[in-house]
Amino acid sequence: MSGESHIKPYIHHAKYYETDQMGIVHHSNYIRWMEEARMDVMSQFGISYRDIEEQGVISPVVSVSCQYKSMVHFDDTVQIQVKVVKYNGVRLDLEYEMTDSFTGELRTKGTSTHCFLDKEGRVISLKRDCPEIDERFRLMLGSAKINH
Amino acid sequence: MSGESHIKPYIHHAKYYETDQMGIVHHSNYIRWMEEARMDVMSQFGISYRDIEEQGVISPVVSVSCQYKSMVHFDDTVQIQVKVVKYNGVRLDLEYEMTDSFTGELRTKGTSTHCFLDKEGRVISLKRDCPEIDERFRLMLGSAKINH
Amino acid sequence: MSGESHIKPYIHHAKYYETDQMGIVHHSNYIRWMEEARMDVMSQFGISYRDIEEQGVISPVVSVSCQYKSMVHFDDTVQIQVKVVKYNGVRLDLEYEMTDSFTGELRTKGTSTHCFLDKEGRVISLKRDCPEIDERFRLMLGSAKINH
Amino acid sequence: MSGESHIKPYIHHAKYYETDQMGIVHHSNYIRWMEEARMDVMSQFGISYRDIEEQGVISPVVSVSCQYKSMVHFDDTVQIQVKVVKYNGVRLDLEYEMTDSFTGELRTKGTSTHCFLDKEGRVISLKRDCPEIDERFRLMLGSAKINH
Repeated sequence: MSGESHIKPYIHHAKYYETDQMGIVHHSNYIRWMEEARMDVMSQFGISYRDIEEQGVISPVVSVSCQYKSMVHFDDTVQIQVKVVKYNGVRLDLEYEMTDSFTGELRTKGTSTHCFLDKEGRVISLKRDCPEIDERFRLMLGSAKINH
Repeated sequence: MSGESHIKPYIHHAKYYETDQMGIVHHSNYIRWMEEARMDVMSQFGISYRDIEEQGVISPVVSVSCQYKSMVHFDDTVQIQVKVVKYNGVRLDLEYEMTDSFTGELRTKGTSTHCFLDKEGRVISLKRDCPEIDERFRLMLGSAKINH
Repeated sequence: MSGESHIKPYIHHAKYYETDQMGIVHHSNYIRWMEEARMDVMSQFGISYRDIEEQGVISPVVSVSCQYKSMVHFDDTVQIQVKVVKYNGVRLDLEYEMTDSFTGELRTKGTSTHCFLDKEGRVISLKRDCPEIDERFRLMLGSAKINH
Repeated sequence: MSGESHIKPYIHHAKYYETDQMGIVHHSNYIRWMEEARMDVMSQFGISYRDIEEQGVISPVVSVSCQYKSMVHFDDTVQIQVKVVKYNGVRLDLEYEMTDSFTGELRTKGTSTHCFLDKEGRVISLKRDCPEIDERFRLMLGSAKINH
């Protein structure tokens, strides 16, 4: 209801070293900004990726995609919205939308998919093995459903 | 026929600075390796991206995607195959396949799409404006059709 | 006296993609953080590096150095202090000190030196060619002398 | 005399994603190229950094410096010479010189210093704890003395 609307978009200020000689941010950096935004939104739901790894769980990226709609330049500020589109305890699907903080113009749209592995590299179910974290991801999923 | 089979896959030796604390290559780097491989294959067809830019044409990335099938570690060597799947003078679609150079195991699959702009940022047709480069991209496309 | 003390240290939150397989931030990233901090402090003195380049001036790095005193981990927050140690209108020398935002522990010390070039790559004197920017760098220098 | 002369300089082909909007390679990347070159030269002496880490030893960077003499552009090829200037079993000091592969023009000069730590983060002596690796570093040092 009310609490869920407090998800704050992640803000990234484009750095000089992120540009290339085309005079715009190099396209590979948006994949990194998606990671920044993802971890920030997770932390808004009380999920610390640092803690997850300290519990012996890693969450590799299974796939990413990014569509570049308009260019980001050095010193621009973008606002990144992250939305959980699927979560079933074993796999997490996210969508991203980056817009210019001042004009609101759409910059990129992206997706990423993640799984969860134990130290031996075996796929685990958060639902079974880390119920507390699982619950928080379900809150993220529920919140996304309400707000979008 | 014969000539086309000489497209050499691009070789990348994974660097220490490309790893992250998961102990594997960070997923954003594969997007960069796709760029390395793309430019290498283009140069095998006589297309120098440096020359293209010096002629006042830039070729921004319109979209990318990557699926991570298995992990690449520091000091591993991967072999990247690039295939033109579509080229119509205005837009270029590529596919990538990265395999371990020693075991042949599939590491990632990727795609990228590109357009061509003039200095003022207007979409141009290579077919009309740079017929020599256009011809070479058509050779790349033709070669891909024969070999795959 | 009073105004100068308002220089705010730059804050950087260490990103996952900045780590390497040693489990710490890769040493090359601190060179990038120095750039972030440098541009932030310049902007506190009304110097926009974006504007400088739009006026046809670039400021390449002439030298850098960094001493790594203790490690920064993913999700740590560092505070970066930038100090102008020399500025004569032609050349700018800076010093950096990075400390952990929570413990205050020293992480790294660094230096960088910069010159100013016009579009043709010729060394220029800001004092002569961009007196307004020159004045602001002198304020930065003066402020550093008072505060340190 | 003869054997020592076989140290091959490391070759790096500058990538598009390594450039910034100044139209040259971003200065932070040279720190990464020094790492590439260092590991390549070590491997020429039979030292695999991968093996070192698998034996439970890490070798963090204690300090780096780089002086930028002239610019490297996209698609340029540089040749990097690495020289051991000091090695005492506990600490390793290296010097780097990067020149354009075609013109021989000096691009950058750099230095780096390294120590060796065990898994608990304690400083170790390779001389005492890894005599085989120690011996190879001494060969590198001896070779540098003869050749320079």
